[in-house]
Amino acid sequence: MSTATSKRELDHPAREEIRLETVLHALSDPVRMRVVRELAAAEGELSCSDFDLPVTKSTTTHHFRVLRESGVIRQVYRGTAKMNGLRRTDLEELFPGLFDRILEAAGLQGARLGG
Amino acid sequence: MSTATSKRELDHPAREEIRLETVLHALSDPVRMRVVRELAAAEGELSCSDFDLPVTKSTTTHHFRVLRESGVIRQVYRGTAKMNGLRRTDLEELFPGLFDRILEAAGLQGARLGG
Repeated sequence: MSTATSKRELDHPAREEIRLETVLHALSDPVRMRVVRELAAAEGELSCSDFDLPVTKSTTTHHFRVLRESGVIRQVYRGTAKMNGLRRTDLEELFPGLFDRILEAAGLQGARLGG
Repeated sequence: MSTATSKRELDHPAREEIRLETVLHALSDPVRMRVVRELAAAEGELSCSDFDLPVTKSTTTHHFRVLRESGVIRQVYRGTAKMNGLRRTDLEELFPGLFDRILEAAGLQGARLGG
């Protein structure tokens, strides 16, 4: 079951609701992949305003929602900031080794293409 | 460069043209994932008619084209049959370990959900 007890708490899939196809779709966009790589590099939470993305604010909001609804990130309000963190434990439990390989693949491609 | 020397030879991205995001998108559809898993299990080529997919013939053709244009499969005509094979060597060279982890994740999810 999804959980949302108040307006200030955002909808997330429970671990067992996370689907591989949805995760792969979430990661199939270059902007979303960039967000995920920055979160992985930060090794902690980042606020939405910590990202300098080449898209409009509403597109940014859309991308974060896709990542949240797929189960890739968790978004929580802390004061007025919406903080984002990777759901690494959930993903690792469901799909062992997958997330690390995807990050590694993204890093190799970035090095190869100068991205 | 893509290669297509005749109508009987289909367009494929060269190895260095394959992009992670496009591969993940190709694998983000349940029907395409099923095709890929069957090809992996077959450990060789299968013709399009070897697959019994729950979609129309034109949708099937679309899914195979997405897989081919992303660089996940190679399609070649042998006589009148269009044969399909995974581009495992190319994918492994570009993204070490990734494809095996995705197949493993799909297998785990299938076992978990009875799919």
